[in-house]
Amino acid sequence: MALVMPDAYKAHLVPHEEVRARVSQFQHALQVAKLEGALITHRTGLYYLAGTIQPVHLYVPAEGEPLLLVRRNEERVVLESPWPTVPFQSMRALGEALRERGPLPDRLGMELDVMPVLTLRRYEKALPGVEWLDVGGVLRAQRSIKSAWEVAQLRAIQPLARAMLEAIPQVLAAGLTEIEVAARLEAFARARGHQGRSWLRAYNMEMYWGHIVAGPSGSVGSFFDSPNGGWGLNPAKPDGPGERVIEPGMPVLIDYVPTAGGYTLDQTRTAVVGRLPSELQDAYTATVAVQEAVVAAARPGVLGSELYELAVQVAEREGIAEGLGGLGENQVRFVGHGIGMEIDELPLLAPGWNEPLQPGMVFALEPKYVHPTLGIVGLENSWLVTRAGVERLTPDGDEVIEVGEA
Amino acid sequence: MALVMPDAYKAHLVPHEEVRARVSQFQHALQVAKLEGALITHRTGLYYLAGTIQPVHLYVPAEGEPLLLVRRNEERVVLESPWPTVPFQSMRALGEALRERGPLPDRLGMELDVMPVLTLRRYEKALPGVEWLDVGGVLRAQRSIKSAWEVAQLRAIQPLARAMLEAIPQVLAAGLTEIEVAARLEAFARARGHQGRSWLRAYNMEMYWGHIVAGPSGSVGSFFDSPNGGWGLNPAKPDGPGERVIEPGMPVLIDYVPTAGGYTLDQTRTAVVGRLPSELQDAYTATVAVQEAVVAAARPGVLGSELYELAVQVAEREGIAEGLGGLGENQVRFVGHGIGMEIDELPLLAPGWNEPLQPGMVFALEPKYVHPTLGIVGLENSWLVTRAGVERLTPDGDEVIEVGEA
Repeated sequence: MALVMPDAYKAHLVPHEEVRARVSQFQHALQVAKLEGALITHRTGLYYLAGTIQPVHLYVPAEGEPLLLVRRNEERVVLESPWPTVPFQSMRALGEALRERGPLPDRLGMELDVMPVLTLRRYEKALPGVEWLDVGGVLRAQRSIKSAWEVAQLRAIQPLARAMLEAIPQVLAAGLTEIEVAARLEAFARARGHQGRSWLRAYNMEMYWGHIVAGPSGSVGSFFDSPNGGWGLNPAKPDGPGERVIEPGMPVLIDYVPTAGGYTLDQTRTAVVGRLPSELQDAYTATVAVQEAVVAAARPGVLGSELYELAVQVAEREGIAEGLGGLGENQVRFVGHGIGMEIDELPLLAPGWNEPLQPGMVFALEPKYVHPTLGIVGLENSWLVTRAGVERLTPDGDEVIEVGEA
Repeated sequence: MALVMPDAYKAHLVPHEEVRARVSQFQHALQVAKLEGALITHRTGLYYLAGTIQPVHLYVPAEGEPLLLVRRNEERVVLESPWPTVPFQSMRALGEALRERGPLPDRLGMELDVMPVLTLRRYEKALPGVEWLDVGGVLRAQRSIKSAWEVAQLRAIQPLARAMLEAIPQVLAAGLTEIEVAARLEAFARARGHQGRSWLRAYNMEMYWGHIVAGPSGSVGSFFDSPNGGWGLNPAKPDGPGERVIEPGMPVLIDYVPTAGGYTLDQTRTAVVGRLPSELQDAYTATVAVQEAVVAAARPGVLGSELYELAVQVAEREGIAEGLGGLGENQVRFVGHGIGMEIDELPLLAPGWNEPLQPGMVFALEPKYVHPTLGIVGLENSWLVTRAGVERLTPDGDEVIEVGEA
């Protein structure tokens, strides 16, 4: 069968020159680290450096052209990636494919922050004598600075992001449960091309669209490393929307990511049926003040830790520091994180993150205040670091979304 | 704040006696393997052995009571798990907590099939001298045999599973795209308590609900280890529903998992607007014959490899062997897999899987036929191994679902 790629799919292919430029930059990092090459097997690395996550291994030598070792779907792989292919049916073929290119390397890179121990052992057995060193960190650092093409992909999500915000008054009503609101918003976004699944990198973390939590559920922490948690539905899906019925005056935090074309923007709004109690409205206004202060200060050269400190200072001045990012032991120690192909990218706006912002970085800033009993309020937007400061990537409109009681 | 657990959530808590029985069986396996204990950090192990996936480590000694090391949400952890807790703020606390119980062990278990290399290195540094051995395989084997409580959880999904099948004629219509049908079916299921996210274990595998693929898309393989793939939406979400428009006569394979309460059933149906071409209807009838033959032969003591061989024999007799499970290089080498908390559990119905079926095992059987150009047809149901044979867990009705052209 001759594969005919649908036009809508083809429009999302990573341009070959983009892939080549990324590999070239990565090869420079391999040379600096005195690695002879790297073997990439994890989806984000593959998508970034090969343009495909079909069942392949990507071998990137420190110099020269990469090679795709293809287990299946070679015809599809060739349509998606610029790199030459060879079949790959067994681990033995791995050694053979590399030996054809010259003597077996001594030191190779691998994304050891995501590769399971037993999986690495199979590579160690297949290529005895090779020392495997982590390149997950190098790739995360490289990916933290978005290319012009990547920024265009993030901008291409803006209509979906805006539609998801504008849908909130349609999908939210008193008497519905959190999960019913979630069902409506997901269906709305899916029908507009939301790809459903977003990527997270950290071990044992997982996220399904994000969180929609109402009233007291918003005061409940979860396993998820975020200011918002919620009960969720059951102990195996213990975060995000659950069976809580939405009542007038309850804050409803809607932290649902728009994801399309392999990229994600991160945005949160606070909504309410009717009006928020004044205590929560004041706290919300304070989170907006935190956002404004951090955004005014963010520019190349500023450290992530400095922006975190600034956020805490403004929160203290505004009287919400105790609940910023959570309460007590559940307080998270960041107000922002990188975003792109994965939701947990670099940089961090967190204590100890003493790396300067650089043009091309994209981060989500999420000042949120957790009340001990009434729930959570706050907002989140995604920002591109430019030469002069930052540019907003998520849609405008930072007011509380008030829905009529109808 | 005193946490008040919602009733709907509470109904899903794993009973303490269930957790205790599982740990007791696991401890026996630790003793046989001459391990002094195991440290469980991954969600499925935590949910299975502690009843919670909150941010905890579970230490299971080979004898005596387990201990939960709690990073956050202790109040919630205590409501979900029977095990005693201690705070755990740093890796140093890990060594201290274990030393309080006696001399540091020499040999401990860890789920090394899912733990990243760099994560293990942090444990090696925190507990120098400890040798870490894999217990992922032991836990997968134990989990392959479901308890009465687990079977009850699987049965509790049946109304959702039936509703999702009965919804197909409502959500499917000519002129809709695959992704629009997906959006409708997801919204329908979410509003009925579908938890959204299902767990997969294998490195670098991921699944979002499953696949809805129409016509020629069904002939396209993906990275996903399944007979069905499809184009999907873009090279970073390159499987399942995409922008293909459904036309009368196209086979529409709907492999969407019902997941609730932490457990999953696996089911697939073939639907069509109008009627299938006779060639595909015949192939579909042949996949039903494969299911019937395997089900008739499945009972305790039969090997997974024998059932795979039987499926291939029936497929050969019926003339669909060439496309069973995929075409050419894309053909997968299994017709069934275990199912429960994860979608890729044991046993396998696959060549080389020479383990006998045992009462309490649950597997999905998925005979599917891929046509070179017209798409994929077939079905999938989940089965519980009983003492006498197997019992069907997914709803009845194995006919092609024909939707009027309206």
